[in-house]
Amino acid sequence: MTSELAAGVSGARMIELGRGECLALLAGVPLGRVGFTRQALPVIRPVNHLVDGDTVVIRTHPGSALARHTTVDEVVVYEADDLDARTRTGWSVMVTGRASLVTAPWEAARYRALLIPWTDRDVDEIVSIQADLVTGYRLLR
Amino acid sequence: MTSELAAGVSGARMIELGRGECLALLAGVPLGRVGFTRQALPVIRPVNHLVDGDTVVIRTHPGSALARHTTVDEVVVYEADDLDARTRTGWSVMVTGRASLVTAPWEAARYRALLIPWTDRDVDEIVSIQADLVTGYRLLR
Repeated sequence: MTSELAAGVSGARMIELGRGECLALLAGVPLGRVGFTRQALPVIRPVNHLVDGDTVVIRTHPGSALARHTTVDEVVVYEADDLDARTRTGWSVMVTGRASLVTAPWEAARYRALLIPWTDRDVDEIVSIQADLVTGYRLLR
Repeated sequence: MTSELAAGVSGARMIELGRGECLALLAGVPLGRVGFTRQALPVIRPVNHLVDGDTVVIRTHPGSALARHTTVDEVVVYEADDLDARTRTGWSVMVTGRASLVTAPWEAARYRALLIPWTDRDVDEIVSIQADLVTGYRLLR
């Protein structure tokens, strides 16, 4: 493309990643973005996460749109990436699956101890996202 | 919270940002994430963008789910952030609005020259997202 030639930069190759590698990459970064629908509008929220087997675990505040969604096992998406704008390389991983509130007190307490909130808001609800569909790619030169 | 005390880190204050500051922050970073619905499932895709007045402009490939969405002026979300996992400070901005294909040839060509694709995929469709709803916050300590 003219714009690429003008900039002297060719596009990177996009290599698809397998499920195992995707979950390992996700587990290696502290932060991602959860996507869901609120009042018929799409929403994206950055949050910190942990990966526990086949689930992605995040915190949210009681009464949040996300917490309400999880009461009906709504499907949400969780995306994390590490992309370098200078070299235009890196990776992105997307997990899609049902979100549910973690209600078992011992389990919720364990996750609360592992997932330190970023803000002073009350984010004591624990949401678990099943990694039903896991896709990802790496940009290589 | 116990977990916060254990880590010796208190949560940051979340300060809401005005529309002007949000759009300026967005314009200052090369990369964000577009969120929309594909076959009833939420999707998040990292892309590069530019801010042109009251619109966020991105590229996509012809035939993409996003390109198809824009033919019906579907509402999408665009999120960008700059968050530091170590200090747990930074900002996040979310723009919600109708997405539409830029069809005027001169306008599309101008955006193609400004928005260099990251990959070698054909991403010649230009999508403009109206910044109808703009929200954002800064995390301060």
